Amino acid sequence: MAANPIYLGVIGVGGVGTAFLSQLARLPNAPKLILLARSSQTLLAPTPAYSAIPAADWATASAAPSLTKAGALPADEIATYLAGAPGRAILVDNTSDINLARQYPTFLKKGISVVTPNKKGFSDDISLWKDIFSSAAQGKALVYHESTVGAGLPVLSTLKDLVATGDEVTRIEGVFSGTLSFLFNTFAPASGSSNAQWSAVVAQAKELGYTEPDPRDDLNGMDVARKLTILARLAGLEVTSPDSFPIESLIPTELASLPSSADGISQFMTRLPEFDSQMSNIKDTAEKQGKVVRYVGSIDVGAKNVTVGLQYFDKDSAIAGLKGSDNIISFYTKRYGANPLIVQGAGAGGDVTAMGVSADLLKVVERLQ
Amino acid sequence: MAANPIYLGVIGVGGVGTAFLSQLARLPNAPKLILLARSSQTLLAPTPAYSAIPAADWATASAAPSLTKAGALPADEIATYLAGAPGRAILVDNTSDINLARQYPTFLKKGISVVTPNKKGFSDDISLWKDIFSSAAQGKALVYHESTVGAGLPVLSTLKDLVATGDEVTRIEGVFSGTLSFLFNTFAPASGSSNAQWSAVVAQAKELGYTEPDPRDDLNGMDVARKLTILARLAGLEVTSPDSFPIESLIPTELASLPSSADGISQFMTRLPEFDSQMSNIKDTAEKQGKVVRYVGSIDVGAKNVTVGLQYFDKDSAIAGLKGSDNIISFYTKRYGANPLIVQGAGAGGDVTAMGVSADLLKVVERLQ
Repeated sequence: MAANPIYLGVIGVGGVGTAFLSQLARLPNAPKLILLARSSQTLLAPTPAYSAIPAADWATASAAPSLTKAGALPADEIATYLAGAPGRAILVDNTSDINLARQYPTFLKKGISVVTPNKKGFSDDISLWKDIFSSAAQGKALVYHESTVGAGLPVLSTLKDLVATGDEVTRIEGVFSGTLSFLFNTFAPASGSSNAQWSAVVAQAKELGYTEPDPRDDLNGMDVARKLTILARLAGLEVTSPDSFPIESLIPTELASLPSSADGISQFMTRLPEFDSQMSNIKDTAEKQGKVVRYVGSIDVGAKNVTVGLQYFDKDSAIAGLKGSDNIISFYTKRYGANPLIVQGAGAGGDVTAMGVSADLLKVVERLQ
Repeated sequence: MAANPIYLGVIGVGGVGTAFLSQLARLPNAPKLILLARSSQTLLAPTPAYSAIPAADWATASAAPSLTKAGALPADEIATYLAGAPGRAILVDNTSDINLARQYPTFLKKGISVVTPNKKGFSDDISLWKDIFSSAAQGKALVYHESTVGAGLPVLSTLKDLVATGDEVTRIEGVFSGTLSFLFNTFAPASGSSNAQWSAVVAQAKELGYTEPDPRDDLNGMDVARKLTILARLAGLEVTSPDSFPIESLIPTELASLPSSADGISQFMTRLPEFDSQMSNIKDTAEKQGKVVRYVGSIDVGAKNVTVGLQYFDKDSAIAGLKGSDNIISFYTKRYGANPLIVQGAGAGGDVTAMGVSADLLKVVERLQ
């Protein structure tokens, strides 16, 4: 635990990236920020001094000609630069870019550890998953990606601990999308009642900024499917890809082929009310059984079965009682018995996602020192 | 991350100790068990070979005269033995012995890391807390004690991550005793109803082995107070000792002075029904407000206020809906906003407590390698 200096490269300054940089600036024991890249510009600490870029004040620093390069640097050049630092290096990827994720093996083989909330790489084809972890072993580098599921909630770390200590995880179930959580908690609350139509709730969520610019990117279930893919793999299932199991889409078939242009999105929102009766019927059917409908993901580890879609839940269940846009994840295991280990709370948002990244970064630093 | 051999000493073979040794035997990357101590006997791997004691088969090994010493070794001799191993060493303390906990600084100063579910040391006088962590810094050793609160649930790790990444924890609240959880979930269930008298529920829990041999050791609230002391200290409050804040005892004053002998316990159980009307009144008062009563601990970080005792909760709240002997811990923070980060599940039992110890051990091994 000697304090060997550790060097840090960060890619992405969007919502999560900005929140992360603000946390990094106040982190105890923070590694030295020597590269900060976004699509329009790359900041590099000049060699051989590698003086740190001020994380709190990166926007000002980006105006200093001595530090900056126009445009994005290719990933392999970033890897070469970081590998050249006089100590262990870490890459934090705060993008949601699958192409960057495909380059993780390049970084890892060079001994550069990877910390990221980018779920794309870990939920892509199983061959990339295997390449990432074998490259990490080869380069003696670390990979931490807590925020790929449930943002800063302790989901992956808990699952890894259960598996590593020999517990038998039998089932994982939960609400994994903040957006879909909000939609169903509002449309079909467990206590009280709501007369709002489904399309009106979707429109409200869109206005509040809770959905992707195209709400179909939430309603198609792919985000949940990607998270389930990651959890299932950590639980020991070899899920070949996130479309290798059934995903129930909430996009009416008739509206699926509308273009993803602004005009297409607008048409989608205009026509969505035509399909409100479908969702109302589902809600009423649940109601008649004393239940509520929720959009959940579940993994039956023994049966090697992954599903994503609508299910009914008792009104007094933890899933039914969820508030706002919270996530809930239940781990059923041999040791925990009939009552699962449950983690619950905000599963989206810049600050809490960045918190998962920062906490991972601290753990990687502790292990590299 | 070269695989430097790491050496392990374990003290205690009770419920948690036995479960831990069975997990250790199947742990990937397990350190080498070279000392196993209990009150009657100490097993030592003979120097200089330090061949490992088989964790799965320690009972058989304890019959081998070459390995064993009669009686317990004093803590300072154990520390000297472990410090003499040709690599980093870890002590796992699976006892609940305050005297052993008072020796942690001796181990830590010699560079021996400590992993333990023993809450006594961390909830004792603040001077021992400070001594433990300054000794760890001095010896460049690590201290992990996840299972001191909520057994294997990710409680302390979550709180540490929140604090380390700069979140502002405003309030921590929850049910921290499996025994008291069972008593109140049975006595005053949130759904359905129960006519059972309080004394009958206590007697049932005692028969099921859910209470300490003397149920007053649960009912006095000290176990909860010790856990709150640890959480409050990690949240930044300088709690001088676990009796420096109000603790509501559920032991009727008239029965508090009965001796802790078998006869005293028997008298306590016989006379407890005399006080059933007190608990029934509390239950009825809650009921009239549409609420249920629960025994909770809470920490108001801003007001520097720690309390342990009975509170009323809405029937649809997460605390009211708890099942069996589960724990629930809610973290209210600036980043998480109105809805807390919640961790819930079994907070007692040999297997899940040992799981927290095993997971901590793996993390310490990862950092020492």
